[in-house]
Amino acid sequence: MGTFKFEYRFKTEGDGTVVDLTGELERIVEENGLQSGLLNVFVPGSTGAITTIEYEPGLIKDIPELFEKLIPSDRSYYHDQTWGDANGFSHLRAALVGPSITVPVSDGSLQLGTWQQVVFLEFDNRARNRRVVITFVGDLV
Amino acid sequence: MGTFKFEYRFKTEGDGTVVDLTGELERIVEENGLQSGLLNVFVPGSTGAITTIEYEPGLIKDIPELFEKLIPSDRSYYHDQTWGDANGFSHLRAALVGPSITVPVSDGSLQLGTWQQVVFLEFDNRARNRRVVITFVGDLV
Amino acid sequence: MGTFKFEYRFKTEGDGTVVDLTGELERIVEENGLQSGLLNVFVPGSTGAITTIEYEPGLIKDIPELFEKLIPSDRSYYHDQTWGDANGFSHLRAALVGPSITVPVSDGSLQLGTWQQVVFLEFDNRARNRRVVITFVGDLV
Repeated sequence: MGTFKFEYRFKTEGDGTVVDLTGELERIVEENGLQSGLLNVFVPGSTGAITTIEYEPGLIKDIPELFEKLIPSDRSYYHDQTWGDANGFSHLRAALVGPSITVPVSDGSLQLGTWQQVVFLEFDNRARNRRVVITFVGDLV
Repeated sequence: MGTFKFEYRFKTEGDGTVVDLTGELERIVEENGLQSGLLNVFVPGSTGAITTIEYEPGLIKDIPELFEKLIPSDRSYYHDQTWGDANGFSHLRAALVGPSITVPVSDGSLQLGTWQQVVFLEFDNRARNRRVVITFVGDLV
Repeated sequence: MGTFKFEYRFKTEGDGTVVDLTGELERIVEENGLQSGLLNVFVPGSTGAITTIEYEPGLIKDIPELFEKLIPSDRSYYHDQTWGDANGFSHLRAALVGPSITVPVSDGSLQLGTWQQVVFLEFDNRARNRRVVITFVGDLV
């Protein structure tokens, strides 16, 4: 048993970008011989979120429309008065979805469904350089 | 310390089914002598979700009404055009709630509240055979 | 490797209270020499939730307004008929956000973003004494 930490860095185009992290996570699991345990994916930051979806072109368009409806970007939030950066909606969307997910690893594989990908949701109102922290607690091969 | 994996299979009646997983989780904890650590419950799939609620008849009716209001099933989503399976709403609801939960185990018991149950929320638009992956990382008795 | 359990108790003023748990979590990590692993924060109960936000005065007002809009408190829910305690909205909000978060610890520090705090969201319709269970699985210094 041990703890193993990894990072993955990428760029986004701002609000509405959905980044499929699955390939990178699978590479980490394979190259490091992660055998069985829990893999946590965490975004340090309060305007992005982690969840799973079927990563296909339709849902990539549905996701931004959903959040625009639930938490509109064209409304003023108290947060915008604090900093003047007009991304109150970004913070609220990220708080609702949450900054992390924990996925089981078994027999050397992520236990995702066939049509299920781990994704990063960018909610900030500008392009960002992003970093996710990937932590495995468990056994190696 | 070690990693221990379990599975639980069940059927649902499609969108709106709320399945109480708590009894099965408690059985797993007890029968396998799981003493202290973290228990992760994960659904491999992108049209179901895991959370906790007080499992009682009123909330079992409130939950489907809430999601029908937040993400209506009678609207067309881009996802529906990709596959023609008309369950875009299912995917969006599942992404919003998330596919997993991690519950602490201490002194050989799940550390849930008295009126708190771990539940699977079925969002798909048809009856499904479901499987959840249950992973414990920690110490045995 | 080992499992270590802690608790933190606090009072809330009822629905809309946002409690910053970060200082307490950092104290636990430091005083106990938690070096690398996963730290899970879990609320035993079904009318409170855990997430991360930038804890600043604007968002502290935005959060209650958001949930009042998504899941209004002045509407009747089936749950209210079960118990007569009129907090169906509290249960639904808590189920949507979720009762726990898992944060990585590395080099003896929580891997949060600079402007990211772990918070408890009180949704219940009365002041409450609250307890969160904090579980670390990993290595000590």
